Amino acid sequence: MKESIDLAIIGAGIAGVSASVYAKRAGLEFALFEPKVVGGQLLLMESVDNYTGVSLGTKARDLASELSDTLKKLEIEVIPEEISKFEVSGKQVKLHTQEGVTSANAAIIATGASFRRLGIAREGELTGLGVSYCAICDGFFFKNKTVAVVGGGNTAVEEAIYLSNICSKVYLIHRRKDLRAIEYLQKELFHKGNVEVIFDTVVESLNGKENLTGINIKNVLTGKTNTLASNGLFVAIGVIPNTCIFKDAVELDESGFIATDEEMKTNCNFVWAAGDCRKRPLRQLITAASEGAISAVGAYKYLKGGYISA
Amino acid sequence: MKESIDLAIIGAGIAGVSASVYAKRAGLEFALFEPKVVGGQLLLMESVDNYTGVSLGTKARDLASELSDTLKKLEIEVIPEEISKFEVSGKQVKLHTQEGVTSANAAIIATGASFRRLGIAREGELTGLGVSYCAICDGFFFKNKTVAVVGGGNTAVEEAIYLSNICSKVYLIHRRKDLRAIEYLQKELFHKGNVEVIFDTVVESLNGKENLTGINIKNVLTGKTNTLASNGLFVAIGVIPNTCIFKDAVELDESGFIATDEEMKTNCNFVWAAGDCRKRPLRQLITAASEGAISAVGAYKYLKGGYISA
Repeated sequence: MKESIDLAIIGAGIAGVSASVYAKRAGLEFALFEPKVVGGQLLLMESVDNYTGVSLGTKARDLASELSDTLKKLEIEVIPEEISKFEVSGKQVKLHTQEGVTSANAAIIATGASFRRLGIAREGELTGLGVSYCAICDGFFFKNKTVAVVGGGNTAVEEAIYLSNICSKVYLIHRRKDLRAIEYLQKELFHKGNVEVIFDTVVESLNGKENLTGINIKNVLTGKTNTLASNGLFVAIGVIPNTCIFKDAVELDESGFIATDEEMKTNCNFVWAAGDCRKRPLRQLITAASEGAISAVGAYKYLKGGYISA
Repeated sequence: MKESIDLAIIGAGIAGVSASVYAKRAGLEFALFEPKVVGGQLLLMESVDNYTGVSLGTKARDLASELSDTLKKLEIEVIPEEISKFEVSGKQVKLHTQEGVTSANAAIIATGASFRRLGIAREGELTGLGVSYCAICDGFFFKNKTVAVVGGGNTAVEEAIYLSNICSKVYLIHRRKDLRAIEYLQKELFHKGNVEVIFDTVVESLNGKENLTGINIKNVLTGKTNTLASNGLFVAIGVIPNTCIFKDAVELDESGFIATDEEMKTNCNFVWAAGDCRKRPLRQLITAASEGAISAVGAYKYLKGGYISA
């Protein structure tokens, strides 16, 4: 690992890969850090149906492979180090890993986001033993069984629809009286014969020793409790940005997302953010790829002082 | 053509197609207007090397076909009408075509941009007879001949490099003393043995009866004139947005690009703009596709009042 580089790109989801493509084509000397597999949240998805230019129904894992291939063809090496500390020091950032410290004149943060947890007892313990955060990854394990989804947004409803095609019965548990998911998803959901939506209800605790067997719920209006016999619990209540190590370096919003301007620049004028770690109007693959490109061009302008005509 | 629709999407380049994909998936009732072929500026490009997720070197025409296929698979019909007039009237827009008038409750403008012309005598007359605005489209016609490129930005330098591989000699004529193109492009350019860069110089007029034979140039510092014997002239001095019919409906910037906020909304709260017609930090395919998606979700929120969780 070099002691000093021009640009550090942190994270190799679609935002970080897109940033790397643009950085490479602009002739920047940079390093791409990713301790896990290239592809980010693509690795948790089944298929891609709204990334214009990529055929409808393309397998997400194939798109993730395409990202790896792109990096290889452009001879962009992925440094498999986790950054444990990120400091702004003078006109540089310092990236701490197990291998040492690297200084960079600019950085693009593209670390994505993780799934939000319910925060109830035994949730962690039963994760992988019935509790899941990704229906598309784990749904098949519950074939012909009963499962529950928690949440009321697009993801929760999409997951309930997905699971209804695999499982014998799907509960959708939502703490409010209305779903937040967009209309066409709700319509699709209510057409499913094996989905039961339980409104105004929260999950209080979980039953089961070696595997989940039941979910204890409470109606928040009546206070009435009940136990649902269920083999699975899919938690779809949102995402938390992977921004913890950046909180002293750049400005975050109240939810921990990195605040940027329209050109993806943070409040530090040599640090950019792209993708799910950023506060943004629409969290999608296509927007993440675009943001990666914009941030790399921003870094290029900062580092090289070049004017970009196009 | 319907008299009244929820949403009009104007233009089927990558921005308009991406907007259509998101509008369709959100269950909106909309019409996509495009008098020409689906694909926008892709139809003028050779290959695509920086649209992350699409293999490096994909033919631009193949990506354009992919856009057509996406529309067909999603059963999105393209209305082949040119809009001659666009009015905001109360809480609707009115779209005038040869077929009549359609009212829409919201509109997304994705009409792209066109090439800027030099504005000299006989430029129009000799277009297609030596004068071109797209090296990748027309370069092959000048195989082993002498050509000139006008401009100093990325596009001009990229075109000069491209042409240097086909033509025997390439002049690059630029009115200033420095190129604006990014460094790595300039480096590549100056490595080419058959490219001659002529600084501080403008094109004054064109010679040739049936075909271009020569270019009359003037040094702006010394006033000295000269004639270059040349079979081709590639004009690469920028783009003008296709926004003329919108100038009374929404706010444009000084160059005619549509002003929007980060969510692509114009100063009219039921009109959005995406892609090259919009004032934007980076004019690329990937940013256009992203902007199409964002504008469609904006229109969805306006039309359906739905909250988008993702």
